Amino acid sequence: MRAKTDTEVLIGGKIYTVSGDESEEYLQRIASYINGKISEYSRIDNYKRQTLDTQNVLLQLNIADELFKAKKQIKILEDDIEAKDKELYDAKHDLITTKIKLNTSEELVRNLETANSEYQKRIVELEALLANKESSRNK
Amino acid sequence: MRAKTDTEVLIGGKIYTVSGDESEEYLQRIASYINGKISEYSRIDNYKRQTLDTQNVLLQLNIADELFKAKKQIKILEDDIEAKDKELYDAKHDLITTKIKLNTSEELVRNLETANSEYQKRIVELEALLANKESSRNK
Repeated sequence: MRAKTDTEVLIGGKIYTVSGDESEEYLQRIASYINGKISEYSRIDNYKRQTLDTQNVLLQLNIADELFKAKKQIKILEDDIEAKDKELYDAKHDLITTKIKLNTSEELVRNLETANSEYQKRIVELEALLANKESSRNK
Repeated sequence: MRAKTDTEVLIGGKIYTVSGDESEEYLQRIASYINGKISEYSRIDNYKRQTLDTQNVLLQLNIADELFKAKKQIKILEDDIEAKDKELYDAKHDLITTKIKLNTSEELVRNLETANSEYQKRIVELEALLANKESSRNK
C-alpha cells in the first residue's frame, strides 16, 4: 500500500493541499480535469454571475452528472458482457456438439470404407470363381 | 429534446436553482449523491476544519476521483468486450468450418452406404449364380 502523502494542487487559481494515498501524478490529472471544467464554465455568463459557493456546487453537480453517466455506461457494458458471455457459451457448446458429430461421422466413414473394400475384394473373388466355372464348363 | 427547466435542489443545506435539460428526478438523485458525500466527509475532523471553499474543492476532487475510476472501469470493460468479440468471432468461424466438414462427411457416409448396399446386392447375385452353377454341375 502506498503511504499517505500531501500533494499541492492548483485549482481555480488557488493552491490546495490534498492528503491521500493516490499518486501525485494522478491527483494532478484530476486537478487538471477540474480546471478544465472551471475554464469551460467561466465562458458562461450565467455561471460567472453566481457566488463562488454556487459556482462550486454547480461544478460538483456537473462532475457528478458525468459520473452518473459513466456509471450508466458501465451498467450497459456489463450487460453487454453478460450477453456476449452467454452467446460465447452457446457457440462453444454448439462447437463441441458439432465436433462430436463430426468425429462419429468420420469414424463411420472409416468403417464403411473398410466394409466396402472387403465387399469389393469378395466381388473380385466371386467373379474369378464364376469365370473359372464358366471356362471349365466350356472345355 | 426535453425543454430546459429550472429545478431547485437542496445541497449541503442550501437551495440552488439548476437550469438544464435533465429531468428533475435525475437532478435530485445527483443532489442526493452529493449530500451523501457531504455527510460522509462531515464526519472527518480534517474536513470540518477547512473553509467552505476548500471543502467544496475537496468534494470536487473526490467526485472527480470516482469519475476517473469509473472511466478506467469503462476502459477495462471495453477491452473485455473487444476480447470477447474476437473470441466469439473465432468460435463462430470454427463452428462454421466444423459444420461444413460435418456436412461433407455426412454426404460421404450416404454415398458409401449406397455403394455398400449395391456391393451387397452384387455379392448376393454372384453367390446365387455360383450356387446355380454348382447345382447344375452336380446334376
